[in-house]
Amino acid sequence: MTMHSDPDCIFCKIVSGQIPADKIHEDDELIAFRDIRPAAPVHLLIIPKTHIAGLADTEASHEALLGRMMTLAPRLAREQGALDGFRVVVNTGRDGGQEVYHLHLHVMGGPRPWKHG
Amino acid sequence: MTMHSDPDCIFCKIVSGQIPADKIHEDDELIAFRDIRPAAPVHLLIIPKTHIAGLADTEASHEALLGRMMTLAPRLAREQGALDGFRVVVNTGRDGGQEVYHLHLHVMGGPRPWKHG
Repeated sequence: MTMHSDPDCIFCKIVSGQIPADKIHEDDELIAFRDIRPAAPVHLLIIPKTHIAGLADTEASHEALLGRMMTLAPRLAREQGALDGFRVVVNTGRDGGQEVYHLHLHVMGGPRPWKHG
Repeated sequence: MTMHSDPDCIFCKIVSGQIPADKIHEDDELIAFRDIRPAAPVHLLIIPKTHIAGLADTEASHEALLGRMMTLAPRLAREQGALDGFRVVVNTGRDGGQEVYHLHLHVMGGPRPWKHG
């Protein structure tokens, strides 16, 4: 996969190390880190290293990447202590409440109550 | 992929046609239908035809399937009129608020206000 980076993107800066983050996973294509404003006892973000603005900008060529992001979610949720379940949320575009325009999976879990609307 | 079916699973019964649903997509591996209790103007469920209890039960062998589910989400959201964004939610296990134990992606979109906690 060609690696793209957007110099104005905060998540690209986390990928490059320009901005620190509490990273819990890194491989060739993905990183995961703890959300700076957790909405649940476990709240992780899984992002691709390459800049993709959002899920609306993906196509068939991104299937493998998205599949890896999705299978990483349960593994990291368990490792971080969310043993009784978790929620994956992908906000996309204005009506989806997307805040950072670099594709990311929220992984939230741990003992209730918590919610992310 | 080997196709599994659980005779007690409501979503397997939708796959087989035993229970009706408002289907908007069907291919070899996936179906999508409108949620019977919509939480947003557009509220779809994307499920695999094969029975997988939830995201916690997936592994590397499910990457391709999950990638296809994820890339189908923006296409169907657009087709159903969610032109300004949408949210994908996968509830997993008790703490994740999972209600039906057959893997499914909620795709919610359309004009706000709506929320799904």
